[in-house]
Amino acid sequence: MEANELSRRYRAYIDCLNRQDWARLGDFVHADASHNGRPFGLAGYRSMLENDFRTIEGLSFTIATLVAEPPHVASRLAFRCRPRADFLGLPVNGREVAFTEHVFYDYRDGLIWRVWSLIDREAIAEQLA
Amino acid sequence: MEANELSRRYRAYIDCLNRQDWARLGDFVHADASHNGRPFGLAGYRSMLENDFRTIEGLSFTIATLVAEPPHVASRLAFRCRPRADFLGLPVNGREVAFTEHVFYDYRDGLIWRVWSLIDREAIAEQLA
Repeated sequence: MEANELSRRYRAYIDCLNRQDWARLGDFVHADASHNGRPFGLAGYRSMLENDFRTIEGLSFTIATLVAEPPHVASRLAFRCRPRADFLGLPVNGREVAFTEHVFYDYRDGLIWRVWSLIDREAIAEQLA
Repeated sequence: MEANELSRRYRAYIDCLNRQDWARLGDFVHADASHNGRPFGLAGYRSMLENDFRTIEGLSFTIATLVAEPPHVASRLAFRCRPRADFLGLPVNGREVAFTEHVFYDYRDGLIWRVWSLIDREAIAEQLA
């Protein structure tokens, strides 16, 4: 796969998340997907995302920087949303916060297979201070 | 610049850091470099790195995943080292800790220009617990 095609697929994945079109998630995520070393599989991955949308008001994924070089994608995601209660152990309780996430994806069979994610928790802590 | 050439340059930058060859840092880092929005310039960037090597015993940069698509590089860096005192507000005090850093670099004129970095502070906190 070319870098351009991989970028296109990744953008379609982000669109799928923002539509919460869970029935299509398997078009983008591998049955054996893992997240930060946890062997979620597709069902667990979907559960994680559904829980995110349930517990975070106004959740939407915005790509700030996308870097594609098969079989890897790296994405710097930007968020502005309102976690309803605690988020990453911080008492956000519905306040609007802005933060970024730095994610590395290993693709396999054209699908997201292994995901390594870090969220800028410190930025949220500073906004609550 | 091609992705392959950008990867080669980035690996040479990491070699430069690991040699602590500060006189050559300007071969890789732009005079107007910034780090997490701080307009360090080359001198400030060098000071940050020199301070890291002074305060962290056994510091060495290992590339776990490298994704290059001009003008961007994303790198997942792995560390196993011994911060001498506090590190990211955590009382490490010379213990060996392992953690990753997820970094996005915007290149300009073939040089590192804007850097956005997140470090897995939670992994360190868990190792100290």
